[in-house]
Amino acid sequence: MDGGAPRPAGPPGLSAYVALSQLLGLAALVATGAWLGRYRGGVAWAGGLRANVHPLCMVVAMVFLQGDALLVYRVFRKEAKRSAKVLHALLHGSALLVALVGVAAIFEAHGEKGIAHMYSLHSWCGMAALVLYAVQWLLGFGFFLFPGATFALRGRYKPLHVFGGVALLVLSVAACLLGITEMLLFNIRDSYSQFAPEGVLANTLGLLLVAFGLVVGYILTRDDWKRPPLPEELALSMDFKTLTEGESPSGSQ
Amino acid sequence: MDGGAPRPAGPPGLSAYVALSQLLGLAALVATGAWLGRYRGGVAWAGGLRANVHPLCMVVAMVFLQGDALLVYRVFRKEAKRSAKVLHALLHGSALLVALVGVAAIFEAHGEKGIAHMYSLHSWCGMAALVLYAVQWLLGFGFFLFPGATFALRGRYKPLHVFGGVALLVLSVAACLLGITEMLLFNIRDSYSQFAPEGVLANTLGLLLVAFGLVVGYILTRDDWKRPPLPEELALSMDFKTLTEGESPSGSQ
Repeated sequence: MDGGAPRPAGPPGLSAYVALSQLLGLAALVATGAWLGRYRGGVAWAGGLRANVHPLCMVVAMVFLQGDALLVYRVFRKEAKRSAKVLHALLHGSALLVALVGVAAIFEAHGEKGIAHMYSLHSWCGMAALVLYAVQWLLGFGFFLFPGATFALRGRYKPLHVFGGVALLVLSVAACLLGITEMLLFNIRDSYSQFAPEGVLANTLGLLLVAFGLVVGYILTRDDWKRPPLPEELALSMDFKTLTEGESPSGSQ
Repeated sequence: MDGGAPRPAGPPGLSAYVALSQLLGLAALVATGAWLGRYRGGVAWAGGLRANVHPLCMVVAMVFLQGDALLVYRVFRKEAKRSAKVLHALLHGSALLVALVGVAAIFEAHGEKGIAHMYSLHSWCGMAALVLYAVQWLLGFGFFLFPGATFALRGRYKPLHVFGGVALLVLSVAACLLGITEMLLFNIRDSYSQFAPEGVLANTLGLLLVAFGLVVGYILTRDDWKRPPLPEELALSMDFKTLTEGESPSGSQ
């Protein structure tokens, strides 16, 4: 996209771990679909199935999309940083929208059945994750995509943004595990302790979410897998207005 | 302990964050005690209170002691590395022993009441955390304290050991949150959704555990707070047999 000499491929091992993360993420999505489809009557906005929209949206958004958004800088090592940055923001933005649909679904489902809102540890952790995720997105947009933040200010905020990103993925996975436990104890409390297939499937989903978080976290924290700064990135950062006010490689900003 | 010139104090901010982590950890211990003491009849090995030994032991061991063991290298920056290493191993070893008591308590309590073992997501995550914690301790001892591992081998294992340490703290906190949710849904399922004080207290405990994990994770991952290698450490590592076979600063290894 920028032309120039071909750059070396990614470091050894990175591709295998990224592939593993995607396999685990897709397996978690399949397990979620199988659980809701086979044991919970499926997913629909209408009627009694609206509550099932919630777990599906939250796993898609707050685990799979959020995790993949974090991997963008590791995977697209040879693309212009501005392309990676826009994709990172778009994936997180999509996750935020899907998550809002998921939260709306459970609030409406609770309202219809007269169930109180926000009383459980799951709801406290999940809502904390979602609100902080929105704040993180807005701060990220303000510091890194919106023109105005100085280079020094961005440099000071970046480590906090990176830590916050990993911490929010972890908190999101934890909130999912709590949601799985709640659903099982509300729906199959007695047969759960008899190793009912639904319980084993949902537990397996929980382990897949943990494994996805572990592999993504490992990829993100390995020093030698960090995206090395490329020569043109300094110039790009200095020429910041061109990125946000002029043409964009994806045509979406 | 080694003599030599006085070294500079820790980096600015580190002490405040360490103090915050300890406040959060102690608050979590107090909240655990208050929950078990005020609402669950207290803690004792005898009779029906044996099940309550489990949450107390697990919070003390797998959160507080494990977290503090991880902070040893950040806090004891001016001590000899061998002292920090022995303290790190001792704290993790103590955590392992207390956690084993906690697991024995819940297995015995389940056995007495005829409740099945290991069916819940809490038990799967918690047991995975405990087994991997024991493996991590043994590998850490074998690589870093037991004589024999080469310098190069230790250097290759260290990043995995460090990642595994943070990941196990996170998984342990998640397992605690799942345990809190299980206890509340088993004991106060109906009043939980009416914001019963016990539920609010236990949810608050959950948030304190999350906050402790976040602050410890932040301290551990801040690059400029890492313990800088000191001149004598290279010599210490090369002179490894002296450390493990000869005198030890704590006299316990």
